[in-house]
Amino acid sequence: MRRILRNRIIFIAYFIVSTGSIIWLVSTCGPGCTTEHVGGDSMADYYKHELERTRANVRQTEKKIRTITQTLNKQYAKAADAVNEILGIESPQIPTIYAITPTYTRPVQKAELVRLTQTFLHVSNFHWIVVEDSERKTQLVSRFLTNSGLPYTHLNVKTTDEYKLKENEASWRKPRGVDQRNIGVDWILENVPQAEEGVVYFADDDNTYSLQIFDEMRTTQKVSVWPVGLVGGLRFERPLLNDAGKVSSWYTVWEPNRPFAMDMAGFAVSLKLFRQQPHARFDITSRRGYVESSLLVQLGIRKEDLEPLAEKCSKVLVWHTRTEKPKWKQEDKLITLGKPSDPRIEV
Amino acid sequence: MRRILRNRIIFIAYFIVSTGSIIWLVSTCGPGCTTEHVGGDSMADYYKHELERTRANVRQTEKKIRTITQTLNKQYAKAADAVNEILGIESPQIPTIYAITPTYTRPVQKAELVRLTQTFLHVSNFHWIVVEDSERKTQLVSRFLTNSGLPYTHLNVKTTDEYKLKENEASWRKPRGVDQRNIGVDWILENVPQAEEGVVYFADDDNTYSLQIFDEMRTTQKVSVWPVGLVGGLRFERPLLNDAGKVSSWYTVWEPNRPFAMDMAGFAVSLKLFRQQPHARFDITSRRGYVESSLLVQLGIRKEDLEPLAEKCSKVLVWHTRTEKPKWKQEDKLITLGKPSDPRIEV
Repeated sequence: MRRILRNRIIFIAYFIVSTGSIIWLVSTCGPGCTTEHVGGDSMADYYKHELERTRANVRQTEKKIRTITQTLNKQYAKAADAVNEILGIESPQIPTIYAITPTYTRPVQKAELVRLTQTFLHVSNFHWIVVEDSERKTQLVSRFLTNSGLPYTHLNVKTTDEYKLKENEASWRKPRGVDQRNIGVDWILENVPQAEEGVVYFADDDNTYSLQIFDEMRTTQKVSVWPVGLVGGLRFERPLLNDAGKVSSWYTVWEPNRPFAMDMAGFAVSLKLFRQQPHARFDITSRRGYVESSLLVQLGIRKEDLEPLAEKCSKVLVWHTRTEKPKWKQEDKLITLGKPSDPRIEV
Repeated sequence: MRRILRNRIIFIAYFIVSTGSIIWLVSTCGPGCTTEHVGGDSMADYYKHELERTRANVRQTEKKIRTITQTLNKQYAKAADAVNEILGIESPQIPTIYAITPTYTRPVQKAELVRLTQTFLHVSNFHWIVVEDSERKTQLVSRFLTNSGLPYTHLNVKTTDEYKLKENEASWRKPRGVDQRNIGVDWILENVPQAEEGVVYFADDDNTYSLQIFDEMRTTQKVSVWPVGLVGGLRFERPLLNDAGKVSSWYTVWEPNRPFAMDMAGFAVSLKLFRQQPHARFDITSRRGYVESSLLVQLGIRKEDLEPLAEKCSKVLVWHTRTEKPKWKQEDKLITLGKPSDPRIEV
């Protein structure tokens, strides 16, 4: 009798434990565990599936963003910089182009700055150094630069009277912008950190620049050169290359024997070279047409070391345009009558 | 004895079934079901957590994309269009600006087109209609437009000899670009779908345009007007407004009694108005300075209906700049020697 009772107790105990385990297992796992696979997904499968779908979505969006940044970097430089900032991407480490632009007050000044700005806004890693020929910075230029959307430095230095052009004096009689370009170089050498690479370009405010010339000059190791259109009384001037692809002479008719017979718009200098020759500047006492050479000679560059760009100097990517002095007859009449056009309206 | 046997059989059977069930339940649910919550997440929880994290990531990326498109739409129009295309977003439905630019072959032509392009690339919903004064489209302009990155239409019509300026004839002697502007209007009326709104602007190739003038003219319902700098022998010309803010007269010294005493660059016409007056064109026989009026009179617009922009016509946002004819002395010498600057090099 005791054995039968003991067996029954064992059986009942086991029954309770096993049934309890089964019930517990079923409740712990929930419907997901006990349903058949053929009927539907478990919760884990559901989330796993959603996760895969969302990740595929993310990959697609990331691909779109990559295409966006590629397109922008290629075509819309300033926009690209803005987007890289939003995305927390560092702009590619390319040398900064420092464009030094001397400028002076005259009626067409603002218009020139407007169209220059609209060109420069397309150039990435660009820093504009605008140097006024004046004793004080003018409101017009200050306000203009603030609103330009470009990274800029605003400087000024007045050309000494001895070298200043008189009102109706032919523009070639005295070299213009020399002091202004020189303090632009001073600023760069004093302010750009040693670790940063750059290219210096002397960009006068009435020339016309294609976007390609900025791409080209970015590679400058010492001094790079290229053709300039509508200059020197010719359709274009340009360096001539020998069979080794080095500059051997200059295609120019006017004073072809200059050490560097080219226009200000036709070359760029690496910041590295300026740092090696930190005292090299333009010489204001230079003879007509020799201002460019005065700098390049001091930089210690030889013709053979020049880097010819623009498809072996066969493409014109910058033009030496000049803007007409506007007709002022009616304005002069009004001025003599003491009633000039409303001076509060900036032109 | 039999009962004991029967009970044992029942017991063993139940033991097998219950142990089997427990084993099956444990294996079906996997470790996720049997582990304690305190120890770690179940698989479902793991995927659920990953999913939430990824979705948060997606929301952040979408927010970045929104910021990108907002920034681009605000500041970098052409880039914005490109990005909207990549993202499959329709550009906002704003009226298209149709800029009609007459142009003709001369040394500075390409330079002018270059700097115009660099301005227009910033303007969204913009369509450039370039009309050459020539019997045939030139290679220079065709190639240029192809590479410009702008939406464009390339047309040409040769001004009849009777109205063509002679080489050294003062530019004001005959109105220039009339036939060219007119066929530009023809093209627009024949090709732009009726449902599409637009604004027509006559943008000569040597003027200077700020970006704001395009924002301003976008609202044109009939004819909008604004100041122009460096024109009419004055610092600027502009419409003068009465107390009601309507145009009452013109600030100009030269021929102030013209019906519309303003320059080509100083107004824009809605496409809607052109469709209402589909025969309105510029009259090439107009007296000097009356070309603009010849169109506006035909459009049936009255002075009171003009829409004054640019902060009640107090801001100069476009300048009537003119480009100097380049000095050609050296080139002429070479030409007489039969050795012009290499004609294969395009300037």
